[in-house]
Amino acid sequence: MVLLRCALLIVLIRAALSSKPGPQVLSTDGEVWPKPQKQEKFDQYYVVDAQLFEFQPDVRNCQILDKAFLRYQRIIQDDNQAVENHANSLNRVHYEATWIRDPFFVGYLKGLNVSLKGHCELYPSKEVDLLQKERYRIEINQTGAWLESNTVWGILRGLETFSQMVYLAQDEESLRMNLTSITDEARFSHRGLLIDTSRHFIPVKVLCTMLDAMAYNKLNVFHWHIVDDQSFPYVSKRFPKLSEKGAYSQNHIYSVSDVQYIIDYARDRGIRVIPEFDTPGHTRSWGLAYPELLTQCYTGTKKNGLLGPIDPTNQSSYTFLKELFKEIIEVFPDRYIHLGGDEVPFECWQSNPTIQEFMKEHKLVDYKALESYYVQHLLDMVTAMNSTPIVWEEVFNNGVNISKDTIVHVWYPSRWEKTLYNVTDAGQWALLSGCWYLDIVNSYGDGDWLKYYRCEPTNFNGTHQQAELILGGEACMWAEAVNQYNIIQRVWPRASAAAERLWSPADVRDEAEAKRRLEEHTCRMNRRGIHAQPPNGPGFCRH
Amino acid sequence: MVLLRCALLIVLIRAALSSKPGPQVLSTDGEVWPKPQKQEKFDQYYVVDAQLFEFQPDVRNCQILDKAFLRYQRIIQDDNQAVENHANSLNRVHYEATWIRDPFFVGYLKGLNVSLKGHCELYPSKEVDLLQKERYRIEINQTGAWLESNTVWGILRGLETFSQMVYLAQDEESLRMNLTSITDEARFSHRGLLIDTSRHFIPVKVLCTMLDAMAYNKLNVFHWHIVDDQSFPYVSKRFPKLSEKGAYSQNHIYSVSDVQYIIDYARDRGIRVIPEFDTPGHTRSWGLAYPELLTQCYTGTKKNGLLGPIDPTNQSSYTFLKELFKEIIEVFPDRYIHLGGDEVPFECWQSNPTIQEFMKEHKLVDYKALESYYVQHLLDMVTAMNSTPIVWEEVFNNGVNISKDTIVHVWYPSRWEKTLYNVTDAGQWALLSGCWYLDIVNSYGDGDWLKYYRCEPTNFNGTHQQAELILGGEACMWAEAVNQYNIIQRVWPRASAAAERLWSPADVRDEAEAKRRLEEHTCRMNRRGIHAQPPNGPGFCRH
Repeated sequence: MVLLRCALLIVLIRAALSSKPGPQVLSTDGEVWPKPQKQEKFDQYYVVDAQLFEFQPDVRNCQILDKAFLRYQRIIQDDNQAVENHANSLNRVHYEATWIRDPFFVGYLKGLNVSLKGHCELYPSKEVDLLQKERYRIEINQTGAWLESNTVWGILRGLETFSQMVYLAQDEESLRMNLTSITDEARFSHRGLLIDTSRHFIPVKVLCTMLDAMAYNKLNVFHWHIVDDQSFPYVSKRFPKLSEKGAYSQNHIYSVSDVQYIIDYARDRGIRVIPEFDTPGHTRSWGLAYPELLTQCYTGTKKNGLLGPIDPTNQSSYTFLKELFKEIIEVFPDRYIHLGGDEVPFECWQSNPTIQEFMKEHKLVDYKALESYYVQHLLDMVTAMNSTPIVWEEVFNNGVNISKDTIVHVWYPSRWEKTLYNVTDAGQWALLSGCWYLDIVNSYGDGDWLKYYRCEPTNFNGTHQQAELILGGEACMWAEAVNQYNIIQRVWPRASAAAERLWSPADVRDEAEAKRRLEEHTCRMNRRGIHAQPPNGPGFCRH
Repeated sequence: MVLLRCALLIVLIRAALSSKPGPQVLSTDGEVWPKPQKQEKFDQYYVVDAQLFEFQPDVRNCQILDKAFLRYQRIIQDDNQAVENHANSLNRVHYEATWIRDPFFVGYLKGLNVSLKGHCELYPSKEVDLLQKERYRIEINQTGAWLESNTVWGILRGLETFSQMVYLAQDEESLRMNLTSITDEARFSHRGLLIDTSRHFIPVKVLCTMLDAMAYNKLNVFHWHIVDDQSFPYVSKRFPKLSEKGAYSQNHIYSVSDVQYIIDYARDRGIRVIPEFDTPGHTRSWGLAYPELLTQCYTGTKKNGLLGPIDPTNQSSYTFLKELFKEIIEVFPDRYIHLGGDEVPFECWQSNPTIQEFMKEHKLVDYKALESYYVQHLLDMVTAMNSTPIVWEEVFNNGVNISKDTIVHVWYPSRWEKTLYNVTDAGQWALLSGCWYLDIVNSYGDGDWLKYYRCEPTNFNGTHQQAELILGGEACMWAEAVNQYNIIQRVWPRASAAAERLWSPADVRDEAEAKRRLEEHTCRMNRRGIHAQPPNGPGFCRH
C-alpha cells in the first residue's frame, strides 16, 4: 500500500491542464523509481543542506559502502548545483525566508544515519537476494534520517531511494526532502539487463554508464552476452587467439583487466555479472581462430568451405571447452554462467556425413537429440566445476536432462506464457525475457515503455508454486542496430519499465502515475549523465 | 556514369564472404556520399602528407572559404591521427617501404589547389543554387590536386568531397587518395532537414552538430521549425513575452545572439536557414503570453477556457503578426519564410459564435474558407515585406490563392505522389517531405534508411515540366520523441539517404553498393564527432 498524501491534489489539477501548451506529462517531484513496496509521505519537509550533508554509517571500512557514500554525496551535490546557480543570481536571504516561515518546513537535513545489520559482503549473490530481497528501511522524521538493512546490497538500494527523494522545489530555491517512511524490498531476486557486445562492440566506458543506470533502476544482474557469431571481443588468457582472430579488430576487445574492471564496477553497485558464452550455435567467430571446433558443412558430397555450429562429435571440442569454461568460471565470480543453447541451425550438421555416422552409432534419432547430446556434456562439465548453468529455453524445449538448479531463460516473444508454464510445471527455475526485448521499437520511436510495463511475469496461468519458480527476468538489448552511440538512448528509460515490474508490487500498475514518475526519473538519469531518451512525448527537464 | 575501376574485384570477393563472421556490410574506402554525378577513379594513389598538407586558394580573404580550409585541414589531420597512432607503435620506415615500391604509388600529396571563378558571396540563396547547382570539379592527377567552382558554395561541396576521398589504407599505415576526376553538381537545389525545437528544446550546441552533419551530407537548407503548440523558445525582440511565457523555461530559449550564431554557423557551411512560424494552428504556446491572439473555444453557449487556433476575425491579430513577421524577416536573411498552415483544427472556430457571425458577414461558406481568409492575409502581408512564402500542402489543398513563387511543401505520407501531381499541375513550385519523415522508425530500429533511399521525388506520373517544378525536399525530424540526447542518433545516417537521393543522379540506386558506402560514411561521421547510429546491422568502425 502506497500513501502519497501531499501530491494528490496537484496531480488532479495538472491532469486537467494537459490539453494546454507545455509538456505532455508533468513530472513528479522526489518520487521513487521503481516504486517502493511501502511508502508513507508527509507534507512536512527538510531543506537538504548539501554543503554540510554527510552519510553517517555505523560500520567503518566497508569499502563498497564507503565508495557508495562518495557517489551519492556527489549526486546530491550535483543536484544542489542547480539550486546554487539559481540562488546565486538572486537574493539568497529572500529565498530562505520563503521556507523559514513555512509551517511545513521542519529544518535542515545534514546527514543520513546508515545502519548495516549484517556483514560487509564482497559480492552480491543469488542466495542472499532470494532470502534478503535487498530489503531496507528508510525513516525521515522530525528527529532525523535513517537507513537500515541487513545487507550491503540493501543499503545500496536504500541509498538510491534516498537520493531519489531529494528534489528541487518548484520555485528552484532549495533541495527538499519530505518526511517519509519506506519499507522496501525486491519482488524478484533476479532483475537483469542483457547487453550484446558481439554484434557491435560496446566500449568499457559505455558499459560502466550502463551499470550506473542499472543501479539507478535497482537492476542487479548484468547478463553479458559477450561473444557471438559476429565477433569475439573477450580476451582469453588460455586461448588468446580467440580474440586475436575473432574480434572485429584489436581496438574492439575486452582485455583481462577490462573484464575485471567491469566486474568490480558492477559489484560496487550491487550488480552481479553473468557472462554468456553461447554454444553450440552462435559461434562463427570462434571458428576464425579454431576452425576445427566447428562443423564442416557439405554441399552434396563435398565440403563447401562453410562452418556450422560446434562439432558435437569431435572429442577435442569438449577438451577445448573444458579449458575455456574453467577460465571463465575463474574470471567471473558469480555462481551462475549462461551457456546459451539457443537457435541452433541443423542444416550444416545434416549435410555432414561424419555427423550422420556418429548419430547412427550413438542412436541419436534427430538433430534435437544431437544437440541434447552436446548440451548434456557441457552442462555436466560446467556443473562439475561448481558453476550453475543458465540456458535459453531451447535446451529445455528439446528435452535435455537438466538438473533442478539449472535456470531456464524464456525468450521467445510470442509464446513466453506457454513456455513459462511448461518450464515451471517441470519444476525448473525460470527467467523471463520474452516480453522485454528492447531491440523491438514502436514505429514512432516514442514512449513504447508501456508495452514493457504491462508485462506481468506471473500471468501464465500456473499455480502459486509455479510462480514461485520465477526468479525474475531480464530486458535484452541485442546489438544488431545499436552501437556505443545509441545504446544508452535505446535502453533508457525503456528498461526502467521492466525494472519497476521486477522490483515493485504486482499491483503497481497506475500508468498515469507511472508516466509522471518516469518523466522525473528520466530527467534524473539525464542529470546524472545517462543520455536517456524522452519517455512520454513533448516535454523538458527542469535542470 | 560512374567508373570505379579498382574496387570492383574486392567487392566481389567480400560479398562471397558475407555469410562468414564479421560485419554484415563491408565498408568502402574513400568513396563519396552523396555519390558524385561523374567520377572516374584510378588504381594509382597519393599518400597524403597530413603534416605538410595545405589548401592553396587563388582568392584571399574570402572568409567563408578561409574558415572552411581550417575545418577541413583539421578533419584531415584528425584522420591522420589514427595512422600516426598505429605507425608510431611500429616501424615507420618499414611501412614507408610498403608504398615506395608499389607501382601504384605516385607520390605524397601536400596540398589542394582551390580556384573560385566567381565572387566571394556571403549568403547561399535559392537563386544561385538553381542556376549553379553547387557545381564543382575535382582533378587529382600525376601533377597534383585541383578543385574549382564558380561559387563559394560549390567550393564548400568540393572540399567535403575531397575530404571524403581521403582514406586509411587497409593495413592502416597511411592516409591515401586515389587519382580521381570528378564533375559534380546537385540534382535538386533545395535539400533540407527540418528540425522541430518546440516539442523538445534542442540546445544550440546540438544544432551546430546537426549543421556539421548536414554539411557532411551536402544538405543545404536548415528548416527551423522553431515554435509550435508545446513551447515558444524563440526570443523575440519586439515581443519578448512570447518566450518569457511560452518557452518551457528560461533555460529553454534561443536568445537573439543564439539565433544569429546559428545563422552564421550554417552560412559558413553553405546552409540556408529558413524559419517556420506555423499559424494559424500549432500556436497554443503563443497564447500563454497573448491569449487574445487565439480563438476562445465554447462548450454550448459558454466559453470553456480553452484556446484554439489564431482568431482570424480579430483585426489586432494581423497587426501583431505584421510586427512579428517584420522582425523575423529582418533576423533571418533567407528570401524564404515558412508560414506553416498545416493541420488547422476547426472545432474551436466552429464553437465560437463571434466567428460564426464573422463568417456569415464575409460570406465564408466553410472553415476551409475561413482558414483561406486568414492565410491570404498572411501571405499578402509577408509578400509585401519582400519575403517569399513556403506553405504546407493544406494551404494549396484548401484552395488559397497563392502567387506563382510561393513554394508548396508536400508532407502527407500516404498521398504525396497525388499531391505533388496536383501542386505542379497548378504550376506551383514544390518541396517533398512525405517520404522522408524521420520520426517513423522501423520496428527493429535498424537500417530503415533504405525506405528513404527508395523514394524518388519525380515518381508521381507528372510531365517533364511538372517535374521541373520540384525544387527538392526535406527530411523531417519532428521532436515528440527526440531530445538533445537522441536526436543525432535518430537523424543520422537515416537523413543521409534523403541527402543522396536529392543530390545524386536518379539512376544511383544500387543498394548493395550504397550500403557499403553508407557504412563508410557513417563511420566517417562518427570519426568527426557525429554520433550516428549503425546503418546496416552488425559491424564496426576501424578508427
